[in-house]
Amino acid sequence: MKCPGVWKMLMAAVCVALLSGLQAQDHPGQVSIILLGATGDLARKYLWQGLFHLYLEEVGKGHHFRFHGTALTSTEQGQEAIAKVLESLSCPGDMASGHCAELKAQFQQLSEYRRLKTPEDYLALSKDIEAQVEHEGLRETGRIFYLSVPPFSYVDIARNINSSCRPGPSAWLRVVLEKPFGHDLHSAQQLAAELGSFFREEEMYRVDHYLGKQVVAQILPFRDQNRAALDGLWNRHHVERVEIVMKETLDAEGRTSFYEEYGVIRDVLQNHLTEVLTLVAMELPVNTSSPEAVLQHKLQAFQALRGLQRHSAVLGQYQAYSGQVRRELQKPDNFHSLTPTFAGILVHIDNLRWEGVPFILMSGKALDERVSYVRILFKNQAFCVQSEKHWVAAQSRCLPRQIIFYIGHGELDSPAVLVSRNLFRPTLPSASWKEVEGQPGLRLFGLPLSDYYAYSPVREQDAYSLLISHIFHCRKDSFVTTENLLASWVFWTPLLDSLAHEVPRFYPGGAENGQLLDFEFSGSHLSFSQLLPEQLVPGPDSAPLPSDFQVLTAKYRDSPLISAWPEELIARLAGDIEAAAVRAVRRFGEFHLALSGGSSPVALFQQLAAGHYSFPWAHTHLWLVDERCVPLWDPESNFQGLQTHLLQHVRVPHYNVHPMPVHRRQRLCAEEDQGAQAYAEEISALVTNGSFDLVLLGMGTDGHTASLFPQSPAGLDGEQLVVLTTSPSSPHQRMSLSLPLINRARKVAVLVMGRMKREIAMLVSRVGHEPKKWPISGVLPDSGQLVWYMDYDAFLG
Amino acid sequence: MKCPGVWKMLMAAVCVALLSGLQAQDHPGQVSIILLGATGDLARKYLWQGLFHLYLEEVGKGHHFRFHGTALTSTEQGQEAIAKVLESLSCPGDMASGHCAELKAQFQQLSEYRRLKTPEDYLALSKDIEAQVEHEGLRETGRIFYLSVPPFSYVDIARNINSSCRPGPSAWLRVVLEKPFGHDLHSAQQLAAELGSFFREEEMYRVDHYLGKQVVAQILPFRDQNRAALDGLWNRHHVERVEIVMKETLDAEGRTSFYEEYGVIRDVLQNHLTEVLTLVAMELPVNTSSPEAVLQHKLQAFQALRGLQRHSAVLGQYQAYSGQVRRELQKPDNFHSLTPTFAGILVHIDNLRWEGVPFILMSGKALDERVSYVRILFKNQAFCVQSEKHWVAAQSRCLPRQIIFYIGHGELDSPAVLVSRNLFRPTLPSASWKEVEGQPGLRLFGLPLSDYYAYSPVREQDAYSLLISHIFHCRKDSFVTTENLLASWVFWTPLLDSLAHEVPRFYPGGAENGQLLDFEFSGSHLSFSQLLPEQLVPGPDSAPLPSDFQVLTAKYRDSPLISAWPEELIARLAGDIEAAAVRAVRRFGEFHLALSGGSSPVALFQQLAAGHYSFPWAHTHLWLVDERCVPLWDPESNFQGLQTHLLQHVRVPHYNVHPMPVHRRQRLCAEEDQGAQAYAEEISALVTNGSFDLVLLGMGTDGHTASLFPQSPAGLDGEQLVVLTTSPSSPHQRMSLSLPLINRARKVAVLVMGRMKREIAMLVSRVGHEPKKWPISGVLPDSGQLVWYMDYDAFLG
Repeated sequence: MKCPGVWKMLMAAVCVALLSGLQAQDHPGQVSIILLGATGDLARKYLWQGLFHLYLEEVGKGHHFRFHGTALTSTEQGQEAIAKVLESLSCPGDMASGHCAELKAQFQQLSEYRRLKTPEDYLALSKDIEAQVEHEGLRETGRIFYLSVPPFSYVDIARNINSSCRPGPSAWLRVVLEKPFGHDLHSAQQLAAELGSFFREEEMYRVDHYLGKQVVAQILPFRDQNRAALDGLWNRHHVERVEIVMKETLDAEGRTSFYEEYGVIRDVLQNHLTEVLTLVAMELPVNTSSPEAVLQHKLQAFQALRGLQRHSAVLGQYQAYSGQVRRELQKPDNFHSLTPTFAGILVHIDNLRWEGVPFILMSGKALDERVSYVRILFKNQAFCVQSEKHWVAAQSRCLPRQIIFYIGHGELDSPAVLVSRNLFRPTLPSASWKEVEGQPGLRLFGLPLSDYYAYSPVREQDAYSLLISHIFHCRKDSFVTTENLLASWVFWTPLLDSLAHEVPRFYPGGAENGQLLDFEFSGSHLSFSQLLPEQLVPGPDSAPLPSDFQVLTAKYRDSPLISAWPEELIARLAGDIEAAAVRAVRRFGEFHLALSGGSSPVALFQQLAAGHYSFPWAHTHLWLVDERCVPLWDPESNFQGLQTHLLQHVRVPHYNVHPMPVHRRQRLCAEEDQGAQAYAEEISALVTNGSFDLVLLGMGTDGHTASLFPQSPAGLDGEQLVVLTTSPSSPHQRMSLSLPLINRARKVAVLVMGRMKREIAMLVSRVGHEPKKWPISGVLPDSGQLVWYMDYDAFLG
Repeated sequence: MKCPGVWKMLMAAVCVALLSGLQAQDHPGQVSIILLGATGDLARKYLWQGLFHLYLEEVGKGHHFRFHGTALTSTEQGQEAIAKVLESLSCPGDMASGHCAELKAQFQQLSEYRRLKTPEDYLALSKDIEAQVEHEGLRETGRIFYLSVPPFSYVDIARNINSSCRPGPSAWLRVVLEKPFGHDLHSAQQLAAELGSFFREEEMYRVDHYLGKQVVAQILPFRDQNRAALDGLWNRHHVERVEIVMKETLDAEGRTSFYEEYGVIRDVLQNHLTEVLTLVAMELPVNTSSPEAVLQHKLQAFQALRGLQRHSAVLGQYQAYSGQVRRELQKPDNFHSLTPTFAGILVHIDNLRWEGVPFILMSGKALDERVSYVRILFKNQAFCVQSEKHWVAAQSRCLPRQIIFYIGHGELDSPAVLVSRNLFRPTLPSASWKEVEGQPGLRLFGLPLSDYYAYSPVREQDAYSLLISHIFHCRKDSFVTTENLLASWVFWTPLLDSLAHEVPRFYPGGAENGQLLDFEFSGSHLSFSQLLPEQLVPGPDSAPLPSDFQVLTAKYRDSPLISAWPEELIARLAGDIEAAAVRAVRRFGEFHLALSGGSSPVALFQQLAAGHYSFPWAHTHLWLVDERCVPLWDPESNFQGLQTHLLQHVRVPHYNVHPMPVHRRQRLCAEEDQGAQAYAEEISALVTNGSFDLVLLGMGTDGHTASLFPQSPAGLDGEQLVVLTTSPSSPHQRMSLSLPLINRARKVAVLVMGRMKREIAMLVSRVGHEPKKWPISGVLPDSGQLVWYMDYDAFLG
């Protein structure tokens, strides 16, 4: 067997052909397969059958095998258990029973049980394999260790394999791992690092059994074989949404000790549904049969995923769950679990292919039906001129058009690929896929089955058989690499953290759930469609709601003060800025807005980007109040924040955007590069009298504003419009508008938010004009207006 | 009656209260209404009835009226005709018949016929009105001239009114005009200028009777009264599409002399459907009852419309049409009309509210049903967890959600406003709108009627009655101002011009049309859904199709030449650029692309913006090959072209875009401002060795390339990287990369397109290295690759 090793997978993917049985014809090669946990549930249900299936497939091709089932129990007990499993193995339906019996006997002959516990056991196994191979005049090709064991034992086993049971240098080693692969990014990294100290990346095969499901395994080949039809369709211009769904009717009873620690996101979404997501979303490699190319493109898909927020998810828990946990885990009567058994997640992908297309991931237990599918719904971009009653089903472009990868179960009760007939006739490999027979009355996703081209596998095959064959054939793209695994945890962990204390919505289970779990999105915000009254009433300890207060209008330092809860405050400020912009553009044809960096303005930028449809962006000039001396693309750069949260989403002409020139001649804020002077010249050239229409400032806990600091005299007075200053905190070098320039503005808005600002806000309210001690106290427009925007936390403490 | 004059409508809308009857209570005021064309079709069918309706409404409020029906026919004939019309007038259904008869007699008393032809007739009319008013001890409040006459007579009539029939200075004048208001922008401007020389803007009332239809007139009030529900919905985040439709079953028989000149776009889309479009799309003024604010916002909506292209439309013509034209207009047997009787148009609105939302305008004759509506379909942003069979109609957020302004006819057969019950319960004025009664079995837009909140007018009123009342009450927002009219023609005329010689698709008419007229969009490209075989076969005179040729690969000036039809050539070039970008980013982490301006690159920019999903824009630096010495926002600026056609559509970080600094210190390309040096420094700082990864050049008919001209020695050799040069054509001053810098590039692509380039392409193919004569001949990368991209027109002539 010839097999490329996958080194440095995501670099230039160098493939090295290892020595194999086909090279040295004189000595036929043997592969030893060691199944750890051979008497466990998974092994008994799927893995032995999968190994037998592999044997049936490969034995005729000149490969020799030995199968070692191992566990921690005694030899006797183990042998008995194994014998029972081997007896129950089945052949494919089309095999003659005599032939089957013969092959089964051979397989039993080649299979043995042994205890594998101590380093000595491993060494003995290795020696036995070598002796047996030599004895039979064979040559060892490789060893597969399939770890069907709990994850806490991985590291010990890995150490033993590495130190005592590696094959000789001319044979390969493959170690197969079953999930869970960690509980979050940190634990996954730790486990990966430990395993990485024993095995090379190309030696590890992490199983996600979804990748072995026939329909999931067909996604990429389908995309490849239907390129002509899909090339124009598989993008944001045509796809309305993608749904990736796994619904279960069962609940977690009997498994709560596992489930309570994991929950639905770690159990299903982080792995199965995420793998499917990447298969749908990734750029299609030119050669989809190259595992390296597939894995590389998959990893790129992860990089384009937009980070999940608290509001990207809705969570539920079936009502009986906490009781089950109390019973099974001996918890006290007042114990209530927060573990979600249902989740809906909205994923967005920030690349040009998928921007704006919602990917909806959903899974839950105790739902009304068992079904798994991926549904790609296409936009209706047709207009049908005739009255609806004349539309022809399965032809009209105005009826739904979709592609469904029906993974299994559900009303169809078999895996299938469905393509709406008004879309295109798909190509599937005719040897392995056949048209589904009609089932009158059956409707799927709003259409009768007859409106689809529908194909199902000629022979249904279980996921583990497929995966075991792929391990043998070195199809690494059917497994989860370390990089992909960590990329997935990078994606999910922040959400899991932010949801840790979230109370899920409780649902009765089954059809009774009604519309209780339906959810919907607006932008990247997901929420249940039905508001529940009890969730609107805060408990006795809850903070007062924003609506309990009026926006206060008062004075602060003799200037108008607007105070509100953060959300309301930002909305008010955004509205005021828009109003100022509209006025300025009407009067002068342009609006000059100088913006500060930091975290409070981010919410403002998002608000301006999202909701202000009449903002005259085309006539707005954007200036920076201050900048850190880092390259503009540095995440610390104020400009980078502006770029990410505002510029990308609105249409300000390129030449109306004025970043501070902190980076000139490959140096940062060098005095002799005259960046400050250049910015001052730019302002003088474009802003009449140097009077900005609006300057947005913040206030630091030390009373600084813009980048004018108490410790640094620059910019507090004098002629200079733009100055270089020094901050007490890193990065120390800054560029800033000067106080005299700020005070020329028509309007200055100071935004102060958060409890941390309470103390300085109190202090500054009492001091006079002392800019050297508190630069913010020097803000007082010569003839313009000053308005303070403070949230209640800053103002009321 | 108090009434604000609307002067300078779209400036700060100054309203001046004219003297009115209510001010001088001693002399009651009289309004004279002169209906020109009083015996014509429109007058007999609608206008007299509308005037009577006005009389019924207003007579009780102390207003006095006189009605003068005029025409060109003799007094006797006219009187007879008018008497007949007056006899047929009807009162509202709820008026007692005795009372009706009394009011009708009064109205007849106040109405007279007179011939109005010569200037003397007008003068006499004026004198008669004055005498009659004085005689009756009244005071003249105003005169309304309703011109229900063919447009060719407008100017004469206007002249006569202005010179001989204006009321005295204390009374107002209103002149009502019926469409068509021109045939295209030019004729509309001409007509508007002529009318403008006789009347002030606020004196003119251009009728679009659609604005008088009850449902259309309800659009803005509906948006206003349902602000709370609509505020969050009425935008691109929630609206999937807007359809504005007027379908007719009648054809143009008997009217072909008019129709042949106008066609469906001028007859229906430019006016009726466009008015409706602006009502849906415009920003809602704070005060929707201010005609000034409404008109101003409407005009702004026009400004945001994206220009229509040839491919924004599909056209059809019912098969019998040409025969009807031949018969009615005595055309020869071989005459075939190209006038469209059916059109589907895709409109996009380039503002933040509507960006990306398709507005579909459709109208046609000889279709399967008569119906007019505006349909706002909302996006489905919900995910319903339960299996479909458990969805509850009229509640599920996963079923269609829409608002329909049902203008009239159709299966409902009455005007109505429909709102899906799963959307919100709308507010309509309960005095004038009532809930529609259930009609079992009736389905509208995919849902049973019972799934809608449905309201229809308590009393149906015809459009002209409403408009005549609005004329009297000075509701200018129900009429088309000169500015709005011209804005509409500015929008439609380029499309009409580009479609002038387009062959429409022929359709049989009625239900037989089948799916023949269904159309669909992709981006801003509209096309019929069904391809017709006969339209794919070019006639004997047709040019060969692109697919008839292979892309030729050959040599030109000893470098690779790629030649193809334009579309294919651009696609190939875009693909090659993307491939170069991907390679460069993989190797160096960034891609430096220098682009030329001009018209050929525009197609390239569009191609790159539209289809290249994997282009690594985030790591691409964009440089200019050359620039005209104009401000960057000038339409002549190369950068402006780049901004419009590429930058707006992709995500290149701001700091990776490098416009040429042609505009420094408010001067253009002043030598002492050292713009060229600054650009050279920027290149040196960011581009390793000054080697661009790819430079895109063009070739002028004089053999220039970049902005290096035969007549100007600058930049052809020497050390300078960036130079100021002089072009023989305006604007003369240019900035350009120098030939030595260009030749340092890794790859240079020269794009040459169009028949005009044929001669120079031939010449340059034969010359040697003579950059002083033909700068293009100096392009030969030192160690990079040169590729020529020429379309067949340039290469084959």
